[in-house]
Amino acid sequence: MKHDELYALLRRRGVLWPSAEIYGGVQGLYDYGPLGTALKRRLEEAWAAWFVGLSHDYYLIDPAEILPEPVVRASGHLENFTDPEVTCESCHAAFRADTILEKVRPEGVDGMTPAQIGEVVRANQVKCPSCGSVELSVPVPFNMMFGMDFGVTGKERVYLRPETAQGSYLSFARMWDVGRHALPLGIAVIGKAYRNEIAPRQVLFRMRAFTQAELQVFFDPAGFPLPFDQVRTEVLPVLRVARRQNGEETPELVSADELVRTGGLPEFYVYHLVHTFRFFRDVLGYPSERIRLFEKSDAERAFYNKLQFDVEVHLESLGGYKELGAVHYRGDYDLSRHSQGSGKDLSVHPTGRSPLLPHVLELTFGVDRNLWGLADLHLVKEGERTLWKLPAFLAPVAVGVFPLIARDHAPFALQLVDDLARAGISAQYDESSSIGKRYARMDEAGAPFCVTVDGETMAAGPTQGTVTLRARDSRSQERVAASEVAGRIYPSLRPPRPRRS
Amino acid sequence: MKHDELYALLRRRGVLWPSAEIYGGVQGLYDYGPLGTALKRRLEEAWAAWFVGLSHDYYLIDPAEILPEPVVRASGHLENFTDPEVTCESCHAAFRADTILEKVRPEGVDGMTPAQIGEVVRANQVKCPSCGSVELSVPVPFNMMFGMDFGVTGKERVYLRPETAQGSYLSFARMWDVGRHALPLGIAVIGKAYRNEIAPRQVLFRMRAFTQAELQVFFDPAGFPLPFDQVRTEVLPVLRVARRQNGEETPELVSADELVRTGGLPEFYVYHLVHTFRFFRDVLGYPSERIRLFEKSDAERAFYNKLQFDVEVHLESLGGYKELGAVHYRGDYDLSRHSQGSGKDLSVHPTGRSPLLPHVLELTFGVDRNLWGLADLHLVKEGERTLWKLPAFLAPVAVGVFPLIARDHAPFALQLVDDLARAGISAQYDESSSIGKRYARMDEAGAPFCVTVDGETMAAGPTQGTVTLRARDSRSQERVAASEVAGRIYPSLRPPRPRRS
Repeated sequence: MKHDELYALLRRRGVLWPSAEIYGGVQGLYDYGPLGTALKRRLEEAWAAWFVGLSHDYYLIDPAEILPEPVVRASGHLENFTDPEVTCESCHAAFRADTILEKVRPEGVDGMTPAQIGEVVRANQVKCPSCGSVELSVPVPFNMMFGMDFGVTGKERVYLRPETAQGSYLSFARMWDVGRHALPLGIAVIGKAYRNEIAPRQVLFRMRAFTQAELQVFFDPAGFPLPFDQVRTEVLPVLRVARRQNGEETPELVSADELVRTGGLPEFYVYHLVHTFRFFRDVLGYPSERIRLFEKSDAERAFYNKLQFDVEVHLESLGGYKELGAVHYRGDYDLSRHSQGSGKDLSVHPTGRSPLLPHVLELTFGVDRNLWGLADLHLVKEGERTLWKLPAFLAPVAVGVFPLIARDHAPFALQLVDDLARAGISAQYDESSSIGKRYARMDEAGAPFCVTVDGETMAAGPTQGTVTLRARDSRSQERVAASEVAGRIYPSLRPPRPRRS
Repeated sequence: MKHDELYALLRRRGVLWPSAEIYGGVQGLYDYGPLGTALKRRLEEAWAAWFVGLSHDYYLIDPAEILPEPVVRASGHLENFTDPEVTCESCHAAFRADTILEKVRPEGVDGMTPAQIGEVVRANQVKCPSCGSVELSVPVPFNMMFGMDFGVTGKERVYLRPETAQGSYLSFARMWDVGRHALPLGIAVIGKAYRNEIAPRQVLFRMRAFTQAELQVFFDPAGFPLPFDQVRTEVLPVLRVARRQNGEETPELVSADELVRTGGLPEFYVYHLVHTFRFFRDVLGYPSERIRLFEKSDAERAFYNKLQFDVEVHLESLGGYKELGAVHYRGDYDLSRHSQGSGKDLSVHPTGRSPLLPHVLELTFGVDRNLWGLADLHLVKEGERTLWKLPAFLAPVAVGVFPLIARDHAPFALQLVDDLARAGISAQYDESSSIGKRYARMDEAGAPFCVTVDGETMAAGPTQGTVTLRARDSRSQERVAASEVAGRIYPSLRPPRPRRS
């Protein structure tokens, strides 16, 4: 679907809507309604099952969203977490440099200095998108963190975290202490991050408050033991820097083995890149031909990243490839900076090894962006039908439960909804309008199953009665004992897990 | 346990710790480690299963944490969300008035004006807790919201939400539109709220960032249909205003029926009060003799609340009753204020009824406070043992899995951990030190079950092998087929649900 049609459908079904809508909305903030909230929770669970499930030594924690100033000074965010901002001298509207240069420089402005960006603006006579004036300022760095006063003295300054990762770095020493004193050690966080984006847009793609799921793996650079044979033959759609420099935009298929042997990538990196790719393809069900693993060049990636591949997925609603996740090899930058900043030596001493400062491999995932991705890629029209072909374990509602005739069949259907809920299955009751319309509503909501209670159910008595079980995608229907519905659909509701290393 | 012992144990086991600990911590902010994160998630799920499960028309949503200024102006928070703050003229330390008056006025300062509080301070010659000076300022209102600039103009002001409830009020119109146009309609939110507390303390009890679970039920004051007979005979431990005024601190046991017939409380209120009490007693497993439903007087409750009972639970670690939840009847205050503030009429027109502005019943629950409550009430010492007798469905780890001898039994045990994870059961592998020590670690972590893989398991082959299944509370052990472990423990891992209305 096109962007506006998709967004209208999501609003209409209460998946999401602009925040504080009755006050006219707030730029860059959205609320999730019942369907969106359930989908988001299941997406987070699926991410955790997969990525935290990669190893017995990967854990999920929940650190505070507020960071004191010394932390963001040490991490570099106070100084460097900026976007170049261009202001119109005529109408005073402000814009991100890469946005204002979108047409003349579609490859973006990463790695360019403000002066260089200013030169491009001037040379191309770029106009203010608001008023049309060409009097645009030289770009100035705009810090994107939300800062605020903390405590009662007015002297303490804190910031909403611009990324969840910092919580993992700050917790590393404590996690080492409570753990088994061994590397690798993975610390994952799922939670909100906040950025005062100059130009929020594309609904869930550039928000000012958004949810990240990030895994930081702390490891010994001298050796990261893992079962590489499990992934050796997997073929990945990579778009490497050399290929990009030849003007190619499509990925080439390269095996994990080859990426290590001739591609110059370390095994630990490729192993996690494969599992990341598999998550998008096998868990979220994104078509593999829409995914590319986009390598960032030296100039494009942050200076502390030694390696970076973004997971880009081609989305029709946004007219191109969008970054939905990434794998960053950050070296010892983070622990080194926080050792200096806090004055606490964060190096560790694993059994049988000399002390070392661990390196960090970071796997990032945008929860909101992927919620949009799940809508873009799985919400489809087939003839008259609109159906959201979500994997069953992600569906906000697992099963719609209908009485054929409300007057006669409602109590049985309501009881079935409660029984299913007790079995851990999200069931939604619907008695209004025709069965066809109820199916259509559940198709749009992504419910993989529907159950109809009818006269035949009632005739057989409460324990023997059968119901009609209907599958969303095939529309196939069959009679099933009401008491067996839970057992039939439950297996499809568990998120997949990787083989554990 | 006493406070310091309990907190030390929770830190040592990585349940929680001070945020940004390596930088010396941040007052009022805490991080949850692996056990705390899992427990918190399960507590939230149990809350949602119970309260959202009360009706087919109650829903969970996830609105933004940031509120624009017009919203908090309309809600009254900009003007009234203040605590009286007393400053020491000598050392400039700042204190909450109720804290500084704790000894001379243990009943608190709710309902008193700043001038009246100042009079009490003066009359009692109260000293500065920091420097001992008696030169304390007259109390001034200190707004507890965190405000910040939003966007790039520097002109837009926003606030971190001081309570999750506002998101439900702001979403009411949209929820009405996407729903079935009927009252009652329940809108629940689980999420962070932020308050710049003058004096954060007692770890999870007065935090500056904390998690609330709140249900707002919008209903027609002319009639709230519900099955009151389901709760009529339930006996509640209430401490009503009249009894309090006689100096009583212990509750009296009164039936729901009586509270309606002679106690002057409406059925809809008592119905939800019963279900709230049942959640604490039957779901969280708090001993009923430690719970009291504490009625707030006119002077104590916010002016818009027509009725308020706090759920207070006696916690040994904090030396008294603490508020862990509440039931507020807020009338039409919220929708009325936001109708005025937004200019959008929030009254609705249910089928067969004239238009009306719904009233709100609010059920609030402090997630962090109850996490502490679960530690205070269920973490016990029995002889040499320390065990966390959490209800199984709340336990962060459902089952510990041990190889008797790591060298021989590790692969089987690791496979079992993975099989359990795939069945939706949180299992934790442990191979270090003696089986007794491993049991002890799992007892402390609250794991209701442990499984040991031994030579007998291996001898019988992978599908027939039996393992030792040990129960936490009774320490009973039995041999069970490894393939049957999941089926045996799974039923205890589902949170209870109420009978639905």
